[in-house]
Amino acid sequence: MNEHVAKDGMKAGAGSRGDLAAAKALVEARLAALVPAAPAAQPELGEAMRDALLSGGKRLRPLMCMAATADLGADPASAVDAGSAIEFVHAASLVLDDLPCMDDAAMRRGRPTIHLAHGEDLAVLTAVSLLTGASEVLADIEVLPCQTRLACVRMLASATGAQGLCAGQFADLRGGRGPRDGASIAAANDLKTGSLFRVSVGFAGLIAQADAATRERLDGFARSLGLAFQLMDDLLDQSGRPSLSGKDCGQDAGKSTMVTVFRRGAAEDQIRGHIGEAKQCLETLFGPKSRLGDLVDMIVAHGEALRGPGMGRRTTVANDLPDIQAAAR
Amino acid sequence: MNEHVAKDGMKAGAGSRGDLAAAKALVEARLAALVPAAPAAQPELGEAMRDALLSGGKRLRPLMCMAATADLGADPASAVDAGSAIEFVHAASLVLDDLPCMDDAAMRRGRPTIHLAHGEDLAVLTAVSLLTGASEVLADIEVLPCQTRLACVRMLASATGAQGLCAGQFADLRGGRGPRDGASIAAANDLKTGSLFRVSVGFAGLIAQADAATRERLDGFARSLGLAFQLMDDLLDQSGRPSLSGKDCGQDAGKSTMVTVFRRGAAEDQIRGHIGEAKQCLETLFGPKSRLGDLVDMIVAHGEALRGPGMGRRTTVANDLPDIQAAAR
Repeated sequence: MNEHVAKDGMKAGAGSRGDLAAAKALVEARLAALVPAAPAAQPELGEAMRDALLSGGKRLRPLMCMAATADLGADPASAVDAGSAIEFVHAASLVLDDLPCMDDAAMRRGRPTIHLAHGEDLAVLTAVSLLTGASEVLADIEVLPCQTRLACVRMLASATGAQGLCAGQFADLRGGRGPRDGASIAAANDLKTGSLFRVSVGFAGLIAQADAATRERLDGFARSLGLAFQLMDDLLDQSGRPSLSGKDCGQDAGKSTMVTVFRRGAAEDQIRGHIGEAKQCLETLFGPKSRLGDLVDMIVAHGEALRGPGMGRRTTVANDLPDIQAAAR
Repeated sequence: MNEHVAKDGMKAGAGSRGDLAAAKALVEARLAALVPAAPAAQPELGEAMRDALLSGGKRLRPLMCMAATADLGADPASAVDAGSAIEFVHAASLVLDDLPCMDDAAMRRGRPTIHLAHGEDLAVLTAVSLLTGASEVLADIEVLPCQTRLACVRMLASATGAQGLCAGQFADLRGGRGPRDGASIAAANDLKTGSLFRVSVGFAGLIAQADAATRERLDGFARSLGLAFQLMDDLLDQSGRPSLSGKDCGQDAGKSTMVTVFRRGAAEDQIRGHIGEAKQCLETLFGPKSRLGDLVDMIVAHGEALRGPGMGRRTTVANDLPDIQAAAR
């Protein structure tokens, strides 16, 4: 299970930075190839979809899917399209989250949000087209058996809908307006960020045909990482430095998040705790060194670099994330 | 191929009215069973989904899917869940079409639209949850082989996204603001209404494993019926009688539709022409009598009854459609 397969995009033995950069380049190329085409008479729809999907981003979810697939001993190249489908859904969710009726955001990845650039009606249609495009991508992965593709479709749909992202977004929008305790904020964060992180490793489990115990432990890893990641995002929002995050800051003003409910220092403690849990899952599964472990290190370093000095070890991560200013979330 | 299978919900030999009523009851029961559940902490999301999916409607698309499956000699009961998945997408598309940034509608099926009843944010999340719920329903149809389920997922996703409903809605919103010729209106109508009609018979072709020529002819049938249906809807919108249509009238004011571009009488002529083409497809495939033919007759009678005297033969259709006032579109 800990055997690494040498493939383009995630070569065994190469340094982890080089691995991640190569994998990210592969993902970008596939996203550009897979982005849905619009009819010739509606070029604006195609443009808006490309804008939403191909304007930067860390591509964490496809990278996580590929890393987990490699860690499980299967070919990470077989996970690129499946991971890309998750990125379709992630991009769609950002378009919808930014809408005036949701977070009413003006900036994302250093650019105007999709509804400001293309109109609110087209933003909604863009999100729907990316959501359905994800199902098409999964259905078309010919290197995977039919049963695996269908299980992926089901898992992604379930994580996106009323038991996943949508429930998390609703809990965050409506629940966040009043006071919340830590447990209910964590539950919302788990749905909102954890859902697609869990799909990312869940797909790997399906592709590599991992046993139930392994898949369950990977699921726990993704849940912990998701909680840490959402806390990092909340801290960044509070920092008020849009030049770093690439998006509006202070969006959470008046909303109850972990950072407003607890002290900032306590939030940092929680991040460290969740990262520790996530790494413990990986060590149990793969030993001290794994592709997913490298990815976690990159996420932690990236978060610390963005949050600035005093928040933890300051690290130069420019080589890992050349588009650091435009890549937040 | 013309052999009818006796099954609950669409009994061979029973009168066509009884057939359709039984099939509709079966669809309603399945929709109520299949509507996605929301987490206990977000009951509002579950309520909004039930409101969007279970508040009336003619259920034309599932009925068409079942009728076509029976006409092709397969068990229509095996098409109920697949047809229900199409209805999920149809319901989601109505929620989105009604949004302030789209048609800004206040009434649908005689009730306040979802965004007015539940808030705009929840309306968007409801639509997404129904869209993803459709994929889950299809993935879970255990009576169908894996390949068929996957082909259904692909077909429905493709018909919903950038090459289907979304493109049609965009063409209608933006293109409709300026002058359009008949061909471009027909192209938009084909995408907007034809897409899911074509999926309805397309699913039947997949379920019954029909040959390519049969599937192509059925596709032509659905395209013609979709064009006729959209014209009926445009005429109804212009009639200004919301008590009959159950939704806002005059929504198309200032928009170029077939009815504004041509005379009303010419639109009626076009409806008759498209219905004639649709029936010709059915006769070639199934002879003079078919389940789909019965459904077309019901649609035509229903449309004429709603449009009122002088528009064609006046028919009492109350027994076919007991919820006629609440069932438009």
